[in-house]
Amino acid sequence: MTKLTWGMIGGGEGSQIGPAHRLGAGLDGEFSFMAGALDHRPDAGRAYGRALGLDVDRSYGDWREMLDGERTRDDRVDLVTVATPNATHFEITKAFLEGGFHVLCEKPMTMTVAEGEEIVNISKETGKICAVNYGYSGYSLVRHMKAMVARGDIGKIRVVVAEFAHGHHADAADADNPRVRWRYDPAQAGVSAQFADCGIHAMHMASFVTGQEVERLSADTISAIGSRVLEDDAMVNFRMSGGAAGRLWTSSVAIGRQHGLTLQVFGETGGLRWAQEQPNQLYYMPLGQRLQVIERGEAGLSPEADRASRVTIGHSEGMPLAFANIYKDLAEAIQARKEGRTMDPAANLYPRAEDGLRSMAAVFAVAESGKAEGKWVDARPPMFR
Amino acid sequence: MTKLTWGMIGGGEGSQIGPAHRLGAGLDGEFSFMAGALDHRPDAGRAYGRALGLDVDRSYGDWREMLDGERTRDDRVDLVTVATPNATHFEITKAFLEGGFHVLCEKPMTMTVAEGEEIVNISKETGKICAVNYGYSGYSLVRHMKAMVARGDIGKIRVVVAEFAHGHHADAADADNPRVRWRYDPAQAGVSAQFADCGIHAMHMASFVTGQEVERLSADTISAIGSRVLEDDAMVNFRMSGGAAGRLWTSSVAIGRQHGLTLQVFGETGGLRWAQEQPNQLYYMPLGQRLQVIERGEAGLSPEADRASRVTIGHSEGMPLAFANIYKDLAEAIQARKEGRTMDPAANLYPRAEDGLRSMAAVFAVAESGKAEGKWVDARPPMFR
Amino acid sequence: MTKLTWGMIGGGEGSQIGPAHRLGAGLDGEFSFMAGALDHRPDAGRAYGRALGLDVDRSYGDWREMLDGERTRDDRVDLVTVATPNATHFEITKAFLEGGFHVLCEKPMTMTVAEGEEIVNISKETGKICAVNYGYSGYSLVRHMKAMVARGDIGKIRVVVAEFAHGHHADAADADNPRVRWRYDPAQAGVSAQFADCGIHAMHMASFVTGQEVERLSADTISAIGSRVLEDDAMVNFRMSGGAAGRLWTSSVAIGRQHGLTLQVFGETGGLRWAQEQPNQLYYMPLGQRLQVIERGEAGLSPEADRASRVTIGHSEGMPLAFANIYKDLAEAIQARKEGRTMDPAANLYPRAEDGLRSMAAVFAVAESGKAEGKWVDARPPMFR
Amino acid sequence: MTKLTWGMIGGGEGSQIGPAHRLGAGLDGEFSFMAGALDHRPDAGRAYGRALGLDVDRSYGDWREMLDGERTRDDRVDLVTVATPNATHFEITKAFLEGGFHVLCEKPMTMTVAEGEEIVNISKETGKICAVNYGYSGYSLVRHMKAMVARGDIGKIRVVVAEFAHGHHADAADADNPRVRWRYDPAQAGVSAQFADCGIHAMHMASFVTGQEVERLSADTISAIGSRVLEDDAMVNFRMSGGAAGRLWTSSVAIGRQHGLTLQVFGETGGLRWAQEQPNQLYYMPLGQRLQVIERGEAGLSPEADRASRVTIGHSEGMPLAFANIYKDLAEAIQARKEGRTMDPAANLYPRAEDGLRSMAAVFAVAESGKAEGKWVDARPPMFR
Repeated sequence: MTKLTWGMIGGGEGSQIGPAHRLGAGLDGEFSFMAGALDHRPDAGRAYGRALGLDVDRSYGDWREMLDGERTRDDRVDLVTVATPNATHFEITKAFLEGGFHVLCEKPMTMTVAEGEEIVNISKETGKICAVNYGYSGYSLVRHMKAMVARGDIGKIRVVVAEFAHGHHADAADADNPRVRWRYDPAQAGVSAQFADCGIHAMHMASFVTGQEVERLSADTISAIGSRVLEDDAMVNFRMSGGAAGRLWTSSVAIGRQHGLTLQVFGETGGLRWAQEQPNQLYYMPLGQRLQVIERGEAGLSPEADRASRVTIGHSEGMPLAFANIYKDLAEAIQARKEGRTMDPAANLYPRAEDGLRSMAAVFAVAESGKAEGKWVDARPPMFR
Repeated sequence: MTKLTWGMIGGGEGSQIGPAHRLGAGLDGEFSFMAGALDHRPDAGRAYGRALGLDVDRSYGDWREMLDGERTRDDRVDLVTVATPNATHFEITKAFLEGGFHVLCEKPMTMTVAEGEEIVNISKETGKICAVNYGYSGYSLVRHMKAMVARGDIGKIRVVVAEFAHGHHADAADADNPRVRWRYDPAQAGVSAQFADCGIHAMHMASFVTGQEVERLSADTISAIGSRVLEDDAMVNFRMSGGAAGRLWTSSVAIGRQHGLTLQVFGETGGLRWAQEQPNQLYYMPLGQRLQVIERGEAGLSPEADRASRVTIGHSEGMPLAFANIYKDLAEAIQARKEGRTMDPAANLYPRAEDGLRSMAAVFAVAESGKAEGKWVDARPPMFR
Repeated sequence: MTKLTWGMIGGGEGSQIGPAHRLGAGLDGEFSFMAGALDHRPDAGRAYGRALGLDVDRSYGDWREMLDGERTRDDRVDLVTVATPNATHFEITKAFLEGGFHVLCEKPMTMTVAEGEEIVNISKETGKICAVNYGYSGYSLVRHMKAMVARGDIGKIRVVVAEFAHGHHADAADADNPRVRWRYDPAQAGVSAQFADCGIHAMHMASFVTGQEVERLSADTISAIGSRVLEDDAMVNFRMSGGAAGRLWTSSVAIGRQHGLTLQVFGETGGLRWAQEQPNQLYYMPLGQRLQVIERGEAGLSPEADRASRVTIGHSEGMPLAFANIYKDLAEAIQARKEGRTMDPAANLYPRAEDGLRSMAAVFAVAESGKAEGKWVDARPPMFR
Repeated sequence: MTKLTWGMIGGGEGSQIGPAHRLGAGLDGEFSFMAGALDHRPDAGRAYGRALGLDVDRSYGDWREMLDGERTRDDRVDLVTVATPNATHFEITKAFLEGGFHVLCEKPMTMTVAEGEEIVNISKETGKICAVNYGYSGYSLVRHMKAMVARGDIGKIRVVVAEFAHGHHADAADADNPRVRWRYDPAQAGVSAQFADCGIHAMHMASFVTGQEVERLSADTISAIGSRVLEDDAMVNFRMSGGAAGRLWTSSVAIGRQHGLTLQVFGETGGLRWAQEQPNQLYYMPLGQRLQVIERGEAGLSPEADRASRVTIGHSEGMPLAFANIYKDLAEAIQARKEGRTMDPAANLYPRAEDGLRSMAAVFAVAESGKAEGKWVDARPPMFR
C-alpha cells in the first residue's frame, strides 16, 4: 500500500483548524503532507509551508498557484483540504474538483444552495470525491449509534432530540469583539449565525445516525443579545424522510455549557443518548429493560465502531481522533479507487457534498422560517425535492 | 401554636397520590388528619377513613357529605385537599372555597379556562386560599434558583430551557392498556395529554423560577404512537412577560429517561441548571467564571432554600420532602391568618389559583397551536390579558 | 391494626437528630409520639415536650422520671428512642430494656465492648428489641444490594470497598471550635474519632450488604491536623467471615467531598456500586456484560427493596425516608409480636444490638491496630470469637 | 527547526503498544519514523518495517542489528523507543544509552532495583535522556494539578488517594487464558502482578502531582482468584517525602470498573479530584468554598496545562494525546540540547529513569510488605536512601 499524499489550502500560522487537519490527516500515517497554500498572504503562506517541511516548489503562494502547480505533476496530491474563510469554499472546491482532485472541504461547503447543487453536480460529473468536514460524525460511538439504528436495534425512529448549546458568546460586553462580532453580521456570516455555525452539526448528526433526511422544519430564532442581527439561540422542529420528528436546540448564550453537542434518538423499541463532551460512553435502553452503558472499545461492537476506535476500553478517545476518522475513511476511499476495488463499507461514512448541500438548504430554511414566525418550510435543496 | 387540622377528598385505598399527600401533610407535624371522603364508593371510603384512624363521624361517604358535615362543626378542618379525578376538581374546589375552606387542589385545577377564572374569582371573593399542587416547586434548590434570579445573580433572563421527558408510555403494545389509554383520549383527558400531564410542571417551574409569566407560545405536538389522538411528545416555544424566551420539550416516549424534569436558566451574567432526578445539586456558572456546584444545605443559601431544607448537607432529600414543603407553606399561611400577622415571606411560595389558571390557559394554547402548524397564540387567560 | 406509641429521650430543641427521629417515626403514621424526656435540663425538656404536643404527664424532666412514669402505665409507649449524648447510651438503653421496653438506640450503642456485650445479653434475656440506628441501611437500593448478594446474583464476594470521606473538619483554624474539637479528644470521644463517627457506618453497610462479619482488620490512622489526638483519616483493611477482603477509607479532611458514603461489592460473577449522595441508582455489572443502572422503584426489584420504597420511579427518595424505614421495620417487628405472628422477613432488616456490639469491637480494633503500625488484630467481640 | 528522527524496537504487527507509540511520536509532526526492529522474528520485523514505510536498510532484524546500523550513521535516529517484552527492557535500554542514543523505555524500565540503579547511573554518565513511559502523566489537567500543587493552591498536602481498579481479569474461567495467566505467574511477571501492572501508574501519578516521593509503605495484597500466585487486588498505604499520607487501591477483579485510574489530593486549603476516564474535567474545591469544575482548555490555566492541550475547550482530548505529550516533551528536550539552550520548563515533565527506578523499588516493597502482613517497609531505592 503506497502512502497517500495530501495538500491543504488555508490553515496558516496561528489558525486553530490548520493543526487539527494536519493532526487528523497525519494521525494514522496514511497521508503525507506534501503541498499547501496556507495563507492568504502569499509570502507568509510559502514561509509557513516550508517551516512545516514542504518542498519549496510545493509551498504555494495561493490556491490558484497550487492548482496549476499540482495539476501538472505526476505525483500530484491525492487529497486537498480546503480550510479557508467560508466565503471562498465554493470557488476553491469547485476549481479543485474540476482540476481532478479529491477534496475535503471545511463546512459550510458553500454560501448558497445553488452553489451547493453545483458542487454536487460537479462531484458527480468528475467522479471526484467531495467530502465535507462534519467531523463529529467520526466518533466511534456515533458510528455505532448509526449501526444500531440501521440494524433495527431500537426499531422505527419516532423522535430525535439534538442540541449544540454553549455559552461562549454570552458576554454582551464581548459583542463588539471582532473575533465574535462577524459571526452575527449578515454581511460576513450570511443568513444565519448560531444555527449555521453549530446547530448544523447537530442536524447533520441527526441525519447521519438515523439515516433519514430533514424534509421540513419550523424555527424559532432569537438574538438574545439585542445588538446582533443574526440569531444566537434557535429552536428548530423538523420532520425526517423516514417519519421521525426532530427537536434541535442551539445556543451561544447558554452560560455553563461548554460545547453541548448531544443526541438522543428514541425508537419504537429503544432509546440512545450520546454527548460529545463524554464521547466514550453511549447510553442505551432497550424497551422495558434497564439503561446500559456501552463503552467505546468494548467487545462485540459494530465494524463501523471498531474501525473508528484506536485505543483499548477505558482509555478515552477525543475529538482529534474523531476528526482523524474522516481522513481514515477518505484514505480507504481513495486507496480503493486506486486499487480498483470496492471500499470497506465500514469506512464509507465520511460526509459528502450531498450533506454539505442539505446543510445549506437547512440553514436557509431556518433563516426563512425564523423570519416568518416559525412557518413550516421545505428544508430540502430543490434538486432533491 | 395550635396544630392545624386537615381533610382529604379522594386518595383512596391503592391510589398513589393519597399516601403522598398524607406523608406531605404529616411530615412536619403541622397538620392532623381529621376528616376525609376518600373514595367514590361511599362504603369503601368510609371504611378506609376509619382504617386510617379518622373518627366515624368524619369518615365521609362523599365530598358533599363531608362539606355538609365539616361546615357546621366548630372544629372544622383548616385545609382540604382535593385529590379526585381531574374532571371533578373544579366542582369540589369551588364548593369548598364557597363553604369557607382553604383548599389545596391537585393539578389540573380545572378542565377549562373559564372554570379556572371562576376559581380565581371565588378565591378572591371568599378570601380563602386556593393552592394548586405543583409540588416540584417545593424543592429547596428550586426555591434557591428563584431567589438567585430575583436578587439578580444571573442578570436579566434571556432564555429558559425546560424539559419533562420520560419513556413510560413508549410501548406501543401498552397503548390499549386502560391505565395508559385514557390519558391520550380527549373524552377523558381533555385537549392535551403529555403537555397537560407533565409539560405543564416544567412550564410552571419556568415561571416560578424566573418570576415571569408565559405570554405567547408556539407548539409542535405529535402522536408518536399513531393510535393516540392526543400528543405524546411536544415542543413548545414561548415568550415571557419579562422578555425571556423559552423552550420546553416534553415526551412520554423517550425511552431511557425516567422522569426527566430539568430546568436551565440563562441570564445576562450567569447560568443555572437543575434536574429533579438529582435535586440536591444546583449547577451555577457566573459569566466568565467556572461551573460551581451548589449543594442543598450548604451555608449561606437564601432563606427560601433554608426553610425548605430539613437534613444536613450531603444527605439527599427527595420528592416527598419537596411535596411536604407545599404543606409547610400552607401551614404558615393559615397560622399567620389565624394569628392576624404577616406570613413569613420565605413560605409565601405555594402555587395558587392564578397558577392553576395560567396553566390551563397554556394547555389550551398548546393544543390550539399544535393543531395550527405551530401558529403563535396568546397563552394568557383572558382575565390577565 | 392499632397505632403504636413512641417516646424519645434526648433530641431537644435545636438538636439535629431530634427532628430526624420524629420525622422518621411519624412518616408512615405507624407510631404516635406520646412521651419524651427531651432535654438534660428538666424544665426545658418538659416545656419542649408540651410544645410538641405531648401530654403534661408524659412530658418528663429526665429519663429516670420517664422510665418510672411509663413503666406503670397500661398504655406505656411501645418503643423508646435513645438520642442522648454518646456516653449515656449504655445506661439508658440498659434501663429501658430491663424495664420491659423495646429500644432504638442512636449509635454508638455503648462506649466499650464489655458494655456492648451486656446490652446484647440483656436484650436476649428480656426478649426486648434493641435496635441501633445505622440508618443508611434503610435505603431501598442498599436493601436491594443485600438481596442480590443473598440470592447469589454476583456470586461469592471477593472484595468490598467502602468509603465515608468528607471534608467538613478540614479547616485547621476550626480545630479549636468546640463543635468540632470534642470529636478528636479522647476524653470525650473515646478511642477513635473519624472511624467511630463515620467509618463505622461504612463498615456496618459492608456487613449488612454482604451478610458477612468483619473478623480481622489492619488500620492506618493519621491525624492530618497535627493538634488532634484522635484520627481524622483512616484506611482499614479487613477480612470477613465469608472470605471477602475489605478496604475502607474514611476521612474528615477530604475537601471537596460532602458526605462520601459509598459501597462497592465485587463478586465472582458481578459487581455493584452505590453512593449515598445519589441513592436512587444502583450500578450493576454482570460478569462479561454491560454496566446497568438499577433505579429505585423499578419493576421487579426484591421485596426488601419494594418495602423500603414509597414514591414512583424517577422521583428521588432521600435520607429521611431511609431513616424512616428503620422505624417501619420496628413497627412491623412490634406489631408481629403483639399479634403473635412471624414478622415480614422483608422488614427484618433493622440493625440490632449485635451490630452495635460488633461496631464497638471494630472501633477498638482500629484504634489498637492504628497504634501498632497496622498490626492485624481480631475485630470480633469476645463473645463472638 | 529540523524535524527529529525516531526509531522503535518492538511494537510489531498486531501489538497494541506499537500503534500507540507511532501515533504519539507522529502526532505533532516533530518526529519522523526512520528506523525499527519491530519483531523478535527478524524477517517479520523487517517486512513490517518496510510496510510502515521504513527504508530497507533501516528496517532491522533485531535490536543489536539496529544498534550497529544506527550507531554508525550520520543521520542516526534522535530517539529510540523500547517497547519489547518487559524482561528485555533493561538490556536494550542500557545498550542504546551506552551507544549514545536518547531512549524512551516502556514501563517497567527494569525487572530489579539494581538494574534500575544501573540505568540511572548510565543515563547520568552518558548524559543521554532515559525517559520512561508513565503516559498518564501527559494529560493536560494532570499537569495542571501538579502546577496547582506546586504553586500552593491547595496548601501543604495531607492525604493522597489513588486508584487503578478494573475488572478485566475477574473471570475465573479466564484465569488459564495465556493472555491473562502470565501476568500472575512469578516466572514471567516478577514479584507483583496488578500493582506492578496498574497500581504503579497510580503511584507515579501521586508522586508526579504532589512533587513528593514515596518513602515507606504497607501493603495488603490478595489473590481473589485462588489459582493465582501473584496479587490481583492490593491496598497500599504510604508516606511521602513532604509529609503526605497516601492510600492506593488497585484491582483487576473490580467488575464494573473499566479503567479506574483516579487521583484525589487533599491539602490544607483545598482538594482536587481527577479521573482518567473523564480526563477533560478537574474538580477543585478551595477550603470553605464550592466545588468548581476546571475544564481542559479554559483560559488562564498554567503553562504546563496549556502546552499539553491541543483542541479548544469542550472538545475532549483522550489518552493518545496524553501519550503524545511525552513525545512532545522529549522533542523539546532534544531540540534544546541540539540548539544549546535551556528547555522550556513547561515541557520538562517527562518521566525519567529515576521514576522508573523508584517504581521498581515500590513494586518490590509492596511484594515484601504483602508477604509480611503489611509490615511497613522502606520503598526507596538504596541509592536514594
